Amino acid sequence: MRTAYDRAEATLASLIAALVMILVGILPALAQEPLPSWNDTAAKSRIMDFVKATVTEGGEGYVAPEDRIAVFDNDGTLWTEQPYYPQLGFMLDRVKTLAPQHPEWKTKEPFKSILNGDLKGLAKGGEMGIMELGTATHAGMTTDQFSKIVTDWFATATHPKTGKLYTDMTYLPMRELLEYLRANGFKTYIVSGGGVEFMRPVSERLYGIPPEQVVGSTIATEYAIVGDVPVLKRLPKIDFVDDGRGKPVGINKFIGRKPIFVAGNSDGDYEMMRWVTAAKGPGFAMLVHHTDADREYAYDRQSAFGKLDKALNEAERRNWLVVDMKTDWKKIFAFEQ
Amino acid sequence: MRTAYDRAEATLASLIAALVMILVGILPALAQEPLPSWNDTAAKSRIMDFVKATVTEGGEGYVAPEDRIAVFDNDGTLWTEQPYYPQLGFMLDRVKTLAPQHPEWKTKEPFKSILNGDLKGLAKGGEMGIMELGTATHAGMTTDQFSKIVTDWFATATHPKTGKLYTDMTYLPMRELLEYLRANGFKTYIVSGGGVEFMRPVSERLYGIPPEQVVGSTIATEYAIVGDVPVLKRLPKIDFVDDGRGKPVGINKFIGRKPIFVAGNSDGDYEMMRWVTAAKGPGFAMLVHHTDADREYAYDRQSAFGKLDKALNEAERRNWLVVDMKTDWKKIFAFEQ
Repeated sequence: MRTAYDRAEATLASLIAALVMILVGILPALAQEPLPSWNDTAAKSRIMDFVKATVTEGGEGYVAPEDRIAVFDNDGTLWTEQPYYPQLGFMLDRVKTLAPQHPEWKTKEPFKSILNGDLKGLAKGGEMGIMELGTATHAGMTTDQFSKIVTDWFATATHPKTGKLYTDMTYLPMRELLEYLRANGFKTYIVSGGGVEFMRPVSERLYGIPPEQVVGSTIATEYAIVGDVPVLKRLPKIDFVDDGRGKPVGINKFIGRKPIFVAGNSDGDYEMMRWVTAAKGPGFAMLVHHTDADREYAYDRQSAFGKLDKALNEAERRNWLVVDMKTDWKKIFAFEQ
Repeated sequence: MRTAYDRAEATLASLIAALVMILVGILPALAQEPLPSWNDTAAKSRIMDFVKATVTEGGEGYVAPEDRIAVFDNDGTLWTEQPYYPQLGFMLDRVKTLAPQHPEWKTKEPFKSILNGDLKGLAKGGEMGIMELGTATHAGMTTDQFSKIVTDWFATATHPKTGKLYTDMTYLPMRELLEYLRANGFKTYIVSGGGVEFMRPVSERLYGIPPEQVVGSTIATEYAIVGDVPVLKRLPKIDFVDDGRGKPVGINKFIGRKPIFVAGNSDGDYEMMRWVTAAKGPGFAMLVHHTDADREYAYDRQSAFGKLDKALNEAERRNWLVVDMKTDWKKIFAFEQ
């Protein structure tokens, strides 16, 4: 009898141990207060009220888990886009790296201006200059090669003002928001005007967003056999521009479902915000408003990067949340004291 | 003492009950033998050996869960593509539905042939005829409208030979394979030459594949405001053809990771099979060979739909598995006795 009792006790003990292991894995996530870097302002409440409604079964705002799609712009919404987009920073560095192989660049725009550190000269070249720059730095290699170039660049490239790695220039409150949404069954996507293959190598590490959940602008690629090995070559040709009116198009093309949550910060996000919030049923849109010149940057209607004008004008009547970085965010970057 | 003992006992009982509930949810999946509609031939063993290797930590063939991407062609790989693609069946039916609004179709090809039930006449019109047909049936409406048209069509449309719903013409062994892969941590995708918005409305129900995991050919769409409501309009213009050399391009564009498992059935899958199996590290490719004229169809090198020639020639030397429907599959359709 004693032996049987011991055995039963041992079985119970191991069952309990297993259960405890399971609970230990779950409880910390439940115990932690969400959005710790957000101040307790109306912005935080509005976001949390919306999310709570989407997960409350039987409630009016309930949304089935498979339809909990959330899309985030990247530049200016998840990381800093001033004094210029990180992808432009990549192009400038890339020109310097490649210059020894291109002696003609010393006298040819837009390369000449870049090599002389003259960003105003670059700006004068306008769209054509930027296109040429994009082509010279983004095309002509295989997709695998480009991915490695981007990964290597992010390992050391630093922000021109803070000197921090670009990968440290992400907004902590937005990373918390991504996590909070995922903890509530949302599938989170990036929908950016930036190049999709510029973001994918770092999206998982920075935002917990896997490559297949990154929607962005694409360059044409071509299947080719090189030395009996199939590769994809990047061609000097734009395939798709995922900005402005292109964003709802990109979402439909890549995701095939209408999101119920959208976060942006510029007029380039206007159309996808309209599209998401005009749908029947729940739809939440928020704008990150850059109001903190001390901790980050302050800009909106006049900015060359991330111009926010029309969307800001219409935010109130469309019931879009405008997040004021200065007052709504306790901390902007993880590296802040 | 007795009360405390009771309380402890009650706590234990509820803990055990909770654990039992958890195990009850897991055990049936573990207990069921995978791939029940496959015969115990070499094909089944090769698939299972590969999958087991990918999940064996520390083993040579181990693949981290996030890299377990599996892609499946649709027509002829997941469902029947004879006597013509289901999407062509949709076009033919759509022409008949729309004919009263287009009296001019009575005398205009390719519509005239379709309305007269003359498929040979349609074939004579060649690619231009098919393009015109595609445009007339796939463009000019919003994405929401098209999705409803497709959903309604699938609810009643039947296969011309079996009289079964098109949605019943899926291959049971392949659906089991999709489930088996997912049970082993794979993320499963469709990568088809078919229209992405033709497949998305039914992909979850038929294959357990959500819309965002369907890669296919796309039509150009445009954001527009109609009566102050933002919509996406489908334009009479091809955006991307996800076939042949387009398949690796589509995979890279939409998924951004190289799959480690690919299933196809025709030369249209050749390039993606080469691309997947040429990668360093594990890569498995299989071809569904249509060899069963009694239960389905028997065709390969000469077929107008799903021509399989080059890929079949090279299968052996590239170590691609050729699945013989007749001998490797116990059952093809769920409706079989």
